Amino acid sequence: MGFIDLRSDTVTKPTEEMRKAMYSAEVGDDGYGEDPTVNFLEEKAAEILGKEAGLFVVSGTMGNQVALLTWTRPGDEVILESESHIYYYEAGGMAANSGVQPFLIDGKDGMMPIEEIRKAIRPKGRVFPNTSLIVLENTHNRAGGKVLPLGYMKEVYELSREHNIPIHLDGARIFNAAIHLKVSAKEIAKYADSVMFCLSKGLSCPMGSLLVGPKEFIEEARRKRQRLGGGLRQAGVVAACGIVALEKMIDRLEEDHEKAKILYEFLKDMEIFNVERPDTNILKVKIKINKKAREFLAEFKKYGLLATSFDDETLRFVTHKDVSFEDIEKAKGIIYKVCKLMD
Amino acid sequence: MGFIDLRSDTVTKPTEEMRKAMYSAEVGDDGYGEDPTVNFLEEKAAEILGKEAGLFVVSGTMGNQVALLTWTRPGDEVILESESHIYYYEAGGMAANSGVQPFLIDGKDGMMPIEEIRKAIRPKGRVFPNTSLIVLENTHNRAGGKVLPLGYMKEVYELSREHNIPIHLDGARIFNAAIHLKVSAKEIAKYADSVMFCLSKGLSCPMGSLLVGPKEFIEEARRKRQRLGGGLRQAGVVAACGIVALEKMIDRLEEDHEKAKILYEFLKDMEIFNVERPDTNILKVKIKINKKAREFLAEFKKYGLLATSFDDETLRFVTHKDVSFEDIEKAKGIIYKVCKLMD
Amino acid sequence: MGFIDLRSDTVTKPTEEMRKAMYSAEVGDDGYGEDPTVNFLEEKAAEILGKEAGLFVVSGTMGNQVALLTWTRPGDEVILESESHIYYYEAGGMAANSGVQPFLIDGKDGMMPIEEIRKAIRPKGRVFPNTSLIVLENTHNRAGGKVLPLGYMKEVYELSREHNIPIHLDGARIFNAAIHLKVSAKEIAKYADSVMFCLSKGLSCPMGSLLVGPKEFIEEARRKRQRLGGGLRQAGVVAACGIVALEKMIDRLEEDHEKAKILYEFLKDMEIFNVERPDTNILKVKIKINKKAREFLAEFKKYGLLATSFDDETLRFVTHKDVSFEDIEKAKGIIYKVCKLMD
Amino acid sequence: MGFIDLRSDTVTKPTEEMRKAMYSAEVGDDGYGEDPTVNFLEEKAAEILGKEAGLFVVSGTMGNQVALLTWTRPGDEVILESESHIYYYEAGGMAANSGVQPFLIDGKDGMMPIEEIRKAIRPKGRVFPNTSLIVLENTHNRAGGKVLPLGYMKEVYELSREHNIPIHLDGARIFNAAIHLKVSAKEIAKYADSVMFCLSKGLSCPMGSLLVGPKEFIEEARRKRQRLGGGLRQAGVVAACGIVALEKMIDRLEEDHEKAKILYEFLKDMEIFNVERPDTNILKVKIKINKKAREFLAEFKKYGLLATSFDDETLRFVTHKDVSFEDIEKAKGIIYKVCKLMD
Repeated sequence: MGFIDLRSDTVTKPTEEMRKAMYSAEVGDDGYGEDPTVNFLEEKAAEILGKEAGLFVVSGTMGNQVALLTWTRPGDEVILESESHIYYYEAGGMAANSGVQPFLIDGKDGMMPIEEIRKAIRPKGRVFPNTSLIVLENTHNRAGGKVLPLGYMKEVYELSREHNIPIHLDGARIFNAAIHLKVSAKEIAKYADSVMFCLSKGLSCPMGSLLVGPKEFIEEARRKRQRLGGGLRQAGVVAACGIVALEKMIDRLEEDHEKAKILYEFLKDMEIFNVERPDTNILKVKIKINKKAREFLAEFKKYGLLATSFDDETLRFVTHKDVSFEDIEKAKGIIYKVCKLMD
Repeated sequence: MGFIDLRSDTVTKPTEEMRKAMYSAEVGDDGYGEDPTVNFLEEKAAEILGKEAGLFVVSGTMGNQVALLTWTRPGDEVILESESHIYYYEAGGMAANSGVQPFLIDGKDGMMPIEEIRKAIRPKGRVFPNTSLIVLENTHNRAGGKVLPLGYMKEVYELSREHNIPIHLDGARIFNAAIHLKVSAKEIAKYADSVMFCLSKGLSCPMGSLLVGPKEFIEEARRKRQRLGGGLRQAGVVAACGIVALEKMIDRLEEDHEKAKILYEFLKDMEIFNVERPDTNILKVKIKINKKAREFLAEFKKYGLLATSFDDETLRFVTHKDVSFEDIEKAKGIIYKVCKLMD
Repeated sequence: MGFIDLRSDTVTKPTEEMRKAMYSAEVGDDGYGEDPTVNFLEEKAAEILGKEAGLFVVSGTMGNQVALLTWTRPGDEVILESESHIYYYEAGGMAANSGVQPFLIDGKDGMMPIEEIRKAIRPKGRVFPNTSLIVLENTHNRAGGKVLPLGYMKEVYELSREHNIPIHLDGARIFNAAIHLKVSAKEIAKYADSVMFCLSKGLSCPMGSLLVGPKEFIEEARRKRQRLGGGLRQAGVVAACGIVALEKMIDRLEEDHEKAKILYEFLKDMEIFNVERPDTNILKVKIKINKKAREFLAEFKKYGLLATSFDDETLRFVTHKDVSFEDIEKAKGIIYKVCKLMD
Repeated sequence: MGFIDLRSDTVTKPTEEMRKAMYSAEVGDDGYGEDPTVNFLEEKAAEILGKEAGLFVVSGTMGNQVALLTWTRPGDEVILESESHIYYYEAGGMAANSGVQPFLIDGKDGMMPIEEIRKAIRPKGRVFPNTSLIVLENTHNRAGGKVLPLGYMKEVYELSREHNIPIHLDGARIFNAAIHLKVSAKEIAKYADSVMFCLSKGLSCPMGSLLVGPKEFIEEARRKRQRLGGGLRQAGVVAACGIVALEKMIDRLEEDHEKAKILYEFLKDMEIFNVERPDTNILKVKIKINKKAREFLAEFKKYGLLATSFDDETLRFVTHKDVSFEDIEKAKGIIYKVCKLMD
């Protein structure tokens, strides 16, 4: 049986064009900087994001971890939103790899209040960690795929300049944000010093992410990537998919947002749920009755629908290339049926 | 000019009796476990706290950091209150020394809501850190010297047993808590697996803290202390002060609490401040007018009074052995004068 | 111009069959453990090496670093040969990622004297690191591709059992060792608790290595891989090449060894070099005249030959699939010409 | 029974004058930089060693570890002698605290060959750690208290300047070296960027060491000390002993050297031992017969003599203030008796 898989956009499979690109990719040894396809992808990514240089990494987590390793020193503190991916879902890597602790600020729709950021910057002093980085996440996963507005990004950026603190943007889904904001990704990226974005989510690549930023930063990041074991050889075979993604797959994210809205229109009328209008392709659905998320997920699965949860009371549905509009209709039917049973 | 120093109880100087104890202390090489005074202090501390074994360390921060190193592994997560000392004031040590990240929970009077603790325990999973420790702080410094009630400690303890997660108690001022609760320190310590307490604060020793816990834990902690450079030689000279402290200085903390209450009675009637009734020897005073804490502190200093701040809007006064009741009366006079000027 | 590239077997390009395998690979989200091709490769690798379980990683360095993270704790010590890859070429990862220090023993042909290993195991004690791992490297890169004999491996293994210390085998080129020893790789692997081997060197895959070992170890290694950012999605596309490699590319390593021997026969008669008979596909060539390795390399390059150096006095030539027997003959001509010029 | 304790000069007990100094020490809160005795000691130490600033730390290990934390970043490499204290006896701290790995060079009498140091400096490159520090140890403990000659120190220093790599001197017993060389400690220290020396060994303080170096370095070191838990309060009580030590105890080290030479003259004629003429107060005695060091130590102890071992075949005797010339004569008697029995 084919499941309708709304767990994550990471489940997307490579397109036929990507497979062909892999098949015919020109490759070399990236350990010597000689893979032309990797080099092209890195330059292209930097250009699209308006940065000097780029680094291909095998995952978004690696891109974020390498950024932390490059911007910080052990004993530093990093300001980030309480439910940011780096803090929440990266296996404790920020402390374990980089030796830095988070200063956590509760956000609204992924946005940390500017005044809270200002207060979070530690004074100089023997007992205080040194605040050396601000992290933003756009779109913000656990906020339900919410998009940080450009005005907000600009405000954080200006604050960061006052204090000479760099900004890293976890832009795993930056193109979803760009589509929603109807601007180029570069317009978002300009309010950050470094940006990580993923090829493997809505863009449907089998694997890979890019870290972009200043030339010197990327050079050092390349060394840090090596230390983590992320140095590659004929990586052109997967980088080739990335080139296809950047050329062909960005505009289609619009469609994923539409699917999410269709699902939203259906869910918002269900009494047992509380659901916010999605900005992008992630739906965050609060359960109002006394049932756990895992109970819903188990029932959905019986009928052929896969989803995940943010926590015991909150379901997550993510739309993507590999669920069709028709699948969304079917998903609605399954959800309806299950909710009847559960209520 | 002699300042009235309400910055911290860490400023307390050793008593005559302590100085004599140092002078005549029997010592040996603690590197070989042969300092009889250190050994006696470690045993005495363990006994008073109701634990199997003790370890003398040169500071509260070292005691806490050694506890983290011993209970956790890199990539783990530690649940603690958002403004706990370990997170706030230990130079980023938890991440830099132990490679662990905090799961921060906002507390009320130092108490993290039990349900929040329960939710904070991470599910098993590839992307999640492993929750390996809960930290409590009693009395809680940044909450204004607040005492966690025994009932609360018990609740956290029971929750921790369900999940097989140890509890470390930052009991830097545990004897202040015990005095307030009118119980022995052992009654508090029984709800924690390891406890750190300081000799150098209200107890007036020149330096030193104790870490107590299970025998096996303390053995491993001794190795971790060595790695941090905390291994000592004829430490009996300072341990001797600790013995005096445990025998003679605990009961007198009551007096520090009285001084704080006298100051509170005075401050609570001042319109420009918001101040909560203190449990122990720390007063947390919110400034209601548009002046920064540092402006008050500068003015106080001109008139001979030293204090510190929790943040831009909050002053901290700490009472201790080396400010007399008379000093408190003078401090009131100075505060009154300055406030008149500032308002 | 096409260079004859003897820098490393990492430069090998994927075969047509690999490209086809990538094109048609069945994939899923490895983040959920659902990539059938990855799963198949992991099982196959474990089976071939005679271990319970396997983990696909993007590089040999990652495989080694994950093994260190899983077997050790910060403050431990790892016994390894002075010129082992883990110590020499992994960007300081052992200390930076795992917090462990090396106990280095000078080897002969990659073999640390058994008695030296025994002495290297630290006594228990407060000031000593805990010896928690022995690392072997077979074939040994900087020893010139030397193969550790089975008898030697067995001896180390027996010593390790006496002391309850696990062995990790950096078997980046274990199949070259197996070919040389005329045994299966399993016969070598049985003297180690965990083994890392590379798909991307002589086996010609574009990228990827495998870490194999006990089931519980691999489960924990999967978490550590995640922390380093090595978690993947539709990695089946590259794993597919690995399956081709294990089925079709092992036996052909014999040919690489022949090419190395041909080159050796030529080089051994050159007066300006000292060269040892190679066991496998790596030639270590000592320069006897007063010229630096980099001077030779620069001249070679002018004539179309690429090689590398171990140090200022030592050249390295590595044979592989993408240099033909004819290329070897041409290489001999270039070397001859350059040596005439340099002498 | 009073043992004759030749295990280490760390066993020395504070003098009457030190005890008096402790008793009457003027103190303040060093957390606020207000302990006048600590401040005076730090300045005095810096002056004596010819450096800009000093930092009081509780142990030699802490001084060394803080120096590593301040000079290096994780992933760096530190060049040091194979049997240096930092590598051998500091509980794996260099990797665990600082994330750095050692480049080990076998020394002769504690001296690493200059050419070996030059070769050890890593080339730039993605896979190489960054060489960021050279460590010397003078006197060198495991070399048998050997003194590095000034000419040698100068050579290393000049090499380090060529490569812009700082030198940290583990001068735990630098005053023993100075006495032997008949120069001031400053003459030795000028060939290092930072120096750690101990108050607690031959100088007989109960505890404490000093780290001295450039002002900016010491400021940062103060932060690192805090992170390790080495921040202190009324540390003047122990710093007071340090002042006595620097004023009164340096010249008497000469006497310890004499005691060692007396013991050497006796031991060198014993057939079962190989012993080198000592430079300072440490005797390294190789056992030529088939008995383990621990067997000798057990027998010595029965007769009232304590010593330690460097390894299974090597005994260590250390002379100091608390063994008299008469004790040395008794020790000779015991050794003679035991050796008769053992042979």
